[in-house]
Amino acid sequence: MTKKDITEENKEDVNNGGYDAPSNVNEVEVINTYELEEKAKEVVPKGGFDYMSGASGDEFTLQQNTKVWDKKGILPRVLADVEFPETSTSIFGQELKVPFVMSPIAAHGLAHQTKEAGTARGIAEFGGSIMSISAYSGASFSEIEEGLKDNKRWFQIYMSKDDEMNKNIIDEAKADGASAIILTADATLGGNRDRDDRNKFVYPFGMPIVSRYLKGDAKNMSLNNIYAQSKQKISTDDVHFLKEYSGLPVFVKGIQTPEDAMSALGAGADGIWVSNHGGRQLDGAPGSFEALESISKAVQGRAPIVFDSGIRRGEHMFKALASGADIVGIGRPVLYGLALGGWKGVQSVFEYFEKDLKRVMQLAGTQTIEDIKKARLFDIK
Amino acid sequence: MTKKDITEENKEDVNNGGYDAPSNVNEVEVINTYELEEKAKEVVPKGGFDYMSGASGDEFTLQQNTKVWDKKGILPRVLADVEFPETSTSIFGQELKVPFVMSPIAAHGLAHQTKEAGTARGIAEFGGSIMSISAYSGASFSEIEEGLKDNKRWFQIYMSKDDEMNKNIIDEAKADGASAIILTADATLGGNRDRDDRNKFVYPFGMPIVSRYLKGDAKNMSLNNIYAQSKQKISTDDVHFLKEYSGLPVFVKGIQTPEDAMSALGAGADGIWVSNHGGRQLDGAPGSFEALESISKAVQGRAPIVFDSGIRRGEHMFKALASGADIVGIGRPVLYGLALGGWKGVQSVFEYFEKDLKRVMQLAGTQTIEDIKKARLFDIK
Amino acid sequence: MTKKDITEENKEDVNNGGYDAPSNVNEVEVINTYELEEKAKEVVPKGGFDYMSGASGDEFTLQQNTKVWDKKGILPRVLADVEFPETSTSIFGQELKVPFVMSPIAAHGLAHQTKEAGTARGIAEFGGSIMSISAYSGASFSEIEEGLKDNKRWFQIYMSKDDEMNKNIIDEAKADGASAIILTADATLGGNRDRDDRNKFVYPFGMPIVSRYLKGDAKNMSLNNIYAQSKQKISTDDVHFLKEYSGLPVFVKGIQTPEDAMSALGAGADGIWVSNHGGRQLDGAPGSFEALESISKAVQGRAPIVFDSGIRRGEHMFKALASGADIVGIGRPVLYGLALGGWKGVQSVFEYFEKDLKRVMQLAGTQTIEDIKKARLFDIK
Amino acid sequence: MTKKDITEENKEDVNNGGYDAPSNVNEVEVINTYELEEKAKEVVPKGGFDYMSGASGDEFTLQQNTKVWDKKGILPRVLADVEFPETSTSIFGQELKVPFVMSPIAAHGLAHQTKEAGTARGIAEFGGSIMSISAYSGASFSEIEEGLKDNKRWFQIYMSKDDEMNKNIIDEAKADGASAIILTADATLGGNRDRDDRNKFVYPFGMPIVSRYLKGDAKNMSLNNIYAQSKQKISTDDVHFLKEYSGLPVFVKGIQTPEDAMSALGAGADGIWVSNHGGRQLDGAPGSFEALESISKAVQGRAPIVFDSGIRRGEHMFKALASGADIVGIGRPVLYGLALGGWKGVQSVFEYFEKDLKRVMQLAGTQTIEDIKKARLFDIK
Repeated sequence: MTKKDITEENKEDVNNGGYDAPSNVNEVEVINTYELEEKAKEVVPKGGFDYMSGASGDEFTLQQNTKVWDKKGILPRVLADVEFPETSTSIFGQELKVPFVMSPIAAHGLAHQTKEAGTARGIAEFGGSIMSISAYSGASFSEIEEGLKDNKRWFQIYMSKDDEMNKNIIDEAKADGASAIILTADATLGGNRDRDDRNKFVYPFGMPIVSRYLKGDAKNMSLNNIYAQSKQKISTDDVHFLKEYSGLPVFVKGIQTPEDAMSALGAGADGIWVSNHGGRQLDGAPGSFEALESISKAVQGRAPIVFDSGIRRGEHMFKALASGADIVGIGRPVLYGLALGGWKGVQSVFEYFEKDLKRVMQLAGTQTIEDIKKARLFDIK
Repeated sequence: MTKKDITEENKEDVNNGGYDAPSNVNEVEVINTYELEEKAKEVVPKGGFDYMSGASGDEFTLQQNTKVWDKKGILPRVLADVEFPETSTSIFGQELKVPFVMSPIAAHGLAHQTKEAGTARGIAEFGGSIMSISAYSGASFSEIEEGLKDNKRWFQIYMSKDDEMNKNIIDEAKADGASAIILTADATLGGNRDRDDRNKFVYPFGMPIVSRYLKGDAKNMSLNNIYAQSKQKISTDDVHFLKEYSGLPVFVKGIQTPEDAMSALGAGADGIWVSNHGGRQLDGAPGSFEALESISKAVQGRAPIVFDSGIRRGEHMFKALASGADIVGIGRPVLYGLALGGWKGVQSVFEYFEKDLKRVMQLAGTQTIEDIKKARLFDIK
Repeated sequence: MTKKDITEENKEDVNNGGYDAPSNVNEVEVINTYELEEKAKEVVPKGGFDYMSGASGDEFTLQQNTKVWDKKGILPRVLADVEFPETSTSIFGQELKVPFVMSPIAAHGLAHQTKEAGTARGIAEFGGSIMSISAYSGASFSEIEEGLKDNKRWFQIYMSKDDEMNKNIIDEAKADGASAIILTADATLGGNRDRDDRNKFVYPFGMPIVSRYLKGDAKNMSLNNIYAQSKQKISTDDVHFLKEYSGLPVFVKGIQTPEDAMSALGAGADGIWVSNHGGRQLDGAPGSFEALESISKAVQGRAPIVFDSGIRRGEHMFKALASGADIVGIGRPVLYGLALGGWKGVQSVFEYFEKDLKRVMQLAGTQTIEDIKKARLFDIK
Repeated sequence: MTKKDITEENKEDVNNGGYDAPSNVNEVEVINTYELEEKAKEVVPKGGFDYMSGASGDEFTLQQNTKVWDKKGILPRVLADVEFPETSTSIFGQELKVPFVMSPIAAHGLAHQTKEAGTARGIAEFGGSIMSISAYSGASFSEIEEGLKDNKRWFQIYMSKDDEMNKNIIDEAKADGASAIILTADATLGGNRDRDDRNKFVYPFGMPIVSRYLKGDAKNMSLNNIYAQSKQKISTDDVHFLKEYSGLPVFVKGIQTPEDAMSALGAGADGIWVSNHGGRQLDGAPGSFEALESISKAVQGRAPIVFDSGIRRGEHMFKALASGADIVGIGRPVLYGLALGGWKGVQSVFEYFEKDLKRVMQLAGTQTIEDIKKARLFDIK
């Protein structure tokens, strides 16, 4: 009845395909993305689903990520002379059709057998957005390339303790066409993800990009084990290094305080990525949206801000953009779309968000992304 | 067992009466209006009930509309020498027995086979209030006329993209006796009403007033489809146009900010209608009562304020009137009364509110509507 | 199975004893008074139980009455050199063993066949407190006398529209030994007690004290009917009248604003009774404890303050006394004790409160009632 | 089926071992300590479990103790150059491996047949922490000694009314190696622990340390009975006495106000122990963490502060240390570990907290305990 998971205790099953991810490809009807989560739960093996949807500790921060939206409201402006709102924008000189991109997430293969290649194709078919490729991808650059084609991409790095390895990885990412590097700074150690601990979750497949620096492949390893083999002592030196070696714009991802935003910019970062890793790291950290405004005020427009952790509706995108974000990242909802319909499901989710954002813009009386940035939110008591 | 609904998927059933609305006519005992909703749910087909009772997105704003009442309390004043409180008031020179009117709502036929004519008769039998006729009425002016007789009425317009059509509609409304025009400004697009999307809800009957500008009749159309064929780009010019062409007082309905109240008045509006469309448009918007006070302060008595969205008890009326409203609109509870007892049920609901408001006035130590306006509310922590 | 209730629809059953109140007499173990309510629910006929435990509207104010206790906390003071705290106090020159009295409540006969006489005896056996006798008592003065013996008593009046009747009632109350008059000012009309409306509740027995001014006996009447026959237009003149005619100290009960406290004192009231009638009148009114502090600051010790509505534990008494009350009134918990054990149950409840208050005093480091009045509470966020 | 408990009503069963505590010894997997409570509930007799896990009144303060953690959040600092955080610290010149100790708790024998000796051994095997021995221990000093060996220990005293007895007890505690005395000042009387009252709970075994001053052994006695025989009138004189007679550092435990912290220090206390006795005394008292900051500001580093009541995760330790605590005490989670695995379970719990605190430190960007003390928390709205 229940799908088979790979755990530390039945590793032997892995070799003969013990983890049974969905494989169907079809459009997905998106009433809202909360429903996608419920539906994905029914088709994804428990260990994989818990890994994707779960977070750390009491999952307080995970819940805060969506609850905080209800602390700021959008004021619907009427008589605003708006029709057919426009969602185009740009970042680092690249034009985008929509102000949202795919956030980096590890191990898409937990959701669908096509792994990151499926996600990539869905994004490419949608067009006009950006795919962030995680260093902990289950697919290789070349596999992803098949789906992504000439679509824009950014590369998110988990660094090795060995800088030569890092250079090696960056070289490959650049060769693959990455137009920016994302340094994930909030995950020098895994959060206490109680669900994974309970499930004794290990990855059922390898991670081609970082396997070069792991002792053995990622297959059958727990996330904590992999983090322990990655670089844990991250500092501003790493920002310098990545920027100089890659020659690409560098984001520092996982920023939750104005102080760290300043620190990152001081070290040469080109973009600030406000995120709490979807609530998967330090539980008790602020809901991501709570942290955005003070960071945005500190950054003062000197660098673009990407925001993620908690985006589930067009309203959320609007609120983030109105609070200082230039671009928002979407994550889990895309994986649920992938689980439910492969690349077509991914495309459905992107299309849903585009349509939903336009609806909100119309009802809020905003014609352009710039109008959203000037919109006034109000405090909900 | 379950009543049949018309959806996009079984449209063919429509022609032979697939939607089975209640038809009984009887007085309704109103303990409170929340119970009416529960009872109406049992007799109205699911698609119709969800359309009436549902709202957009997470239905956060819908819930806020009633939750916000608990943020301001009424101070019961004693030794106040009050007996037999008086509820009479007036607006635009018209005398009213009570300070509440029927808010415009589309498609009463979902609740009862007599459609808007049933509602109209209930209001007329109650006497001393006003019926707002929606442009998306399922009954024609002449059908409504049968029930309404010489009772006062206002006309709410969803504009056509074609101004000649608009003139045509206004001519007809005036000929029918409308004494004010209500421009709904917050619905240039449908909200994301997840319940309707799930039900694939379409109207099971036509809309005689606007069918002249729809491609085909409203029957079998979704609300989004109809909105798309109505005018979506609404501006202050439309206020000018309606006022000049109709020669009647014009309300702008859907005002939720002081800025838009000022904008509407600047464009010549005669009345401000504070409303969030019962939570059916932009989810995340303030609970309607939350928005009232700041608007009232901005308006400073220069124009009457009608308030709706969330009125369920006499206490709510009192709080709205004490916070700057001159008149309150009631909506869903009336439809539930219509569903449960036709025109007699409508009358029962109006009588309930009259009696309930008087009770509150007595207990709060207020003899008149003017006394209510001077009453001090307190913040509930 | 279910006990029989008297409703408007089966009045004929009344004459042969259709309402079957408990009659057993025994001590009651009081773990806490919330449990008493649950247990009383099992033995009291539904209509009677709902009448006693229910309140008006959404029962928001009823719930607030207990919820507000959690907004102010007691600071446990240690090293305070306290042992065997003393609870004695006095009001109007009368010495009390405890700082709490019985609040006036109508129709104790709903809880127990001994009616108010049972309550009176329990209070008398406890000793050192005061019984407030309601004008809507189901027992006559002489019946109550049997239980109360020489225990102190106050008389709460619902006035007749006819002042001669009022004089007559006061004469009788004085002859019976009442040492103060309580004018209930917040009940010039019944609250919208939805439960009673649903049950079509009518009293199953008469009200000897006020039956002289009712058209027919109270038996089979609804509360609303009785209120309508009592005086509804209450003003400061009535305070004057009661004070002059009775020559006794007069409380105005139902005060919830500093303004009304001032008004009552200005009219000659000797005591202020802060109460919201147990949440049974205007729903949406403040939790009674919320209103206390501002009233106490306005009164500035010029008159004693009695506080009721929401007292369920010793902590609540402490908080009320620390916020300006001189005496607290207990109500429903006593009726539950009466229902569960007749006069012995009443005594058990009084003993519980005495013991519980002493426990709190010890743990809070307060030796006397005066120490409580000086204690600092803190705001719970 | 259900385990047998000793209550006042079946005391005769006690002599032949009516209370059946767990006895197994094994490591315990700690996903989180909330789960330990659930698991312990299944193996510990109901009366014992309710005694351990329950608290007073509505258990409001018990719940506040953990809920208040969600009012202050930790800001994850990134690019902080942290790896392998260090948890060592010291108090009264004693070096500790971790900044947490065992809080004094009575009657460990309710959780496990090895009683306090089991707890002691688990702590000793962990090493580098401190065992607080309760005066109401079910094991004697010499029994505890067997498990504790040369591990550090503090002694918590419930004083006798007879000072000679107190001297006698202190002599014995000193001879046993106690390096500090903890005066519990918030328990001069038992809280109203409704669960115990309902269970008619009595201790199923004696209390060797205080039995010398009880009339009969503690066996079969209720807590209230024992408190009544202990000293209830505690003042600053007792601090003086303990300090002078013992010559050891003295903590006053149960401090919840700055005033009492000052009072304790003025009386010569060497350490302040902020605690609300796990919510077991005055219900309605602040969540312990709520009280910490103001006390810490008053103490200004003049004496070390130990904090307990509510510690369940590493995040909680971090927040307490960042708010002025020098050391935190853990309680119930250790008893649950004891119940589930004897001394090995205790060790598992201590190891869990060490690992969990290190994880939080890494994610918060703090290398040392001193870094934690400088960390900025934020208010969660």
